[in-house]
Amino acid sequence: MALYGGIEAGGTKIVCAIGTDPDHIYAEVRFPTTGPDEVIPRAVAFFREQADLGPIAAVGIAAFGPIDPDPNSPTFGYVTTTPKPGWAHTDFAGAIRRALRVPVGFDTDVNTAALGEHRWGAAQGLNTFIYLTVGTGIGGGAMVNGKLLHGLMHPEMGHLRVPHNLATDPFPGCCSYHGDCLEGLCGGPAVEARTGKRGETLAEDDLVWDIVAHYLSLALADYILVLSPQRIIMGGGVMTQAHLFDKIRKMTPLHLNNYIDMPQLAAAIDRFIVPPRLGNRAGVLGAIALAEIAANPH
Amino acid sequence: MALYGGIEAGGTKIVCAIGTDPDHIYAEVRFPTTGPDEVIPRAVAFFREQADLGPIAAVGIAAFGPIDPDPNSPTFGYVTTTPKPGWAHTDFAGAIRRALRVPVGFDTDVNTAALGEHRWGAAQGLNTFIYLTVGTGIGGGAMVNGKLLHGLMHPEMGHLRVPHNLATDPFPGCCSYHGDCLEGLCGGPAVEARTGKRGETLAEDDLVWDIVAHYLSLALADYILVLSPQRIIMGGGVMTQAHLFDKIRKMTPLHLNNYIDMPQLAAAIDRFIVPPRLGNRAGVLGAIALAEIAANPH
Repeated sequence: MALYGGIEAGGTKIVCAIGTDPDHIYAEVRFPTTGPDEVIPRAVAFFREQADLGPIAAVGIAAFGPIDPDPNSPTFGYVTTTPKPGWAHTDFAGAIRRALRVPVGFDTDVNTAALGEHRWGAAQGLNTFIYLTVGTGIGGGAMVNGKLLHGLMHPEMGHLRVPHNLATDPFPGCCSYHGDCLEGLCGGPAVEARTGKRGETLAEDDLVWDIVAHYLSLALADYILVLSPQRIIMGGGVMTQAHLFDKIRKMTPLHLNNYIDMPQLAAAIDRFIVPPRLGNRAGVLGAIALAEIAANPH
Repeated sequence: MALYGGIEAGGTKIVCAIGTDPDHIYAEVRFPTTGPDEVIPRAVAFFREQADLGPIAAVGIAAFGPIDPDPNSPTFGYVTTTPKPGWAHTDFAGAIRRALRVPVGFDTDVNTAALGEHRWGAAQGLNTFIYLTVGTGIGGGAMVNGKLLHGLMHPEMGHLRVPHNLATDPFPGCCSYHGDCLEGLCGGPAVEARTGKRGETLAEDDLVWDIVAHYLSLALADYILVLSPQRIIMGGGVMTQAHLFDKIRKMTPLHLNNYIDMPQLAAAIDRFIVPPRLGNRAGVLGAIALAEIAANPH
């Protein structure tokens, strides 16, 4: 059986793995997300050092964005306009392809996590769903009609403009691009700016979680109205506050007020808004799945 | 060449047509959207009366929603929870199929218009785009990766929750479900409630158009962030105010603040936010295309 390589390039750390599926990962390494001049050689060295496992048929890369995921574009495989030092306009996929001489699949971290959850996790059997990560940043990937969503570029769901009543919530938001977009109102840095504490140190009954659930549920309502997903998977550091799920499941249908008359927005909402079944491994496992697709283009 | 029947069932009028494409429509009739006991027999009678044109291979129905467009559902082809008198839980497609004994395609009015624009209009060659109608109601359809978007049910983009600053815009909104959702803030009835006049009687420089463009551009920004369309087609009665296009093209990129670095959101925005090329015929022509697909399932 062919072996695949996966690279999950997150905002703070890189995970590289070799294997075929969640139960068959034969090697794995993690290191911090420094600049590409350090990260790309380290990833290449990892795959080369594991040569005794056998040849790798392809590599999949799950990258923080914005990126160019369009195979027909001259800048396919690039990280594009990221503010992350050193990474803007970096030919990530090309560098890996040239070094390892294998096909390379390339997508956003969240689209790739969606692919992983579709193959082995909470989205098996669905054709249209969203994977949302809520952490330092907020990002969303989606599969629609069985294929990952790219369109013009790729979704950037975390920057949704949601209703924000300054009279009841005077926090101005902290997104450097948009101020009070979703990420600016309730991403990790917003939680810290609102409370003066890191989210993981706050009690479950801290009022900030009601605020976080309020904005996330408004965003979910909008995602449902626009994309009509069969399920929404919510992962990321903030969502390890498992009590948020109950709040979000209660609030989301209130924003829709029975306009969409489906059991998924009523009795069956526990199976509609769910955590990733692959946990924090959705990204790297999705990258393995991306590699398999790159090795077997149809 | 096979002939197809199309039914566009809008909120106020029904259009039935027979033909194959925009240049070959051989018969057409319009009548008001009364109850289904009147509308369905009138549509059936129209198709029967045109029997001398030759047999119809299939009928496509573009219906106001919410509807059930899932061919695997026991209520496929039904208008479901509409408040429109007599129409709730009506087996629209089934009644036409039983009467005419032909395959029936069935989708939302806006998905069907998207299909028409994809086949013959402003979305030719694209695989991921949005068709938005702004009239008495606001509704959006979408094609993603070359197929119409359904997912859980179908998009209901007009009911998006957008930022609404009550301090600067005290109008509470007039959606019976959501108050100040997009439709409640700037659909036809909202324009009338805000001004005391019907939109078509207002001057181009009436300030209400700035308000309408403001909310529509916020919604477009959100659609772009969630669905990443390659183009957004805007039709419907309100958009016959052609000056709105310039306002919306200016405002939409401001909400995104260069976060999505694509020419479609800058120099090329005139080709990104566009009117339907089929004008007000996108729905009925899309219904013809829907019929063709129903007659030739893959």
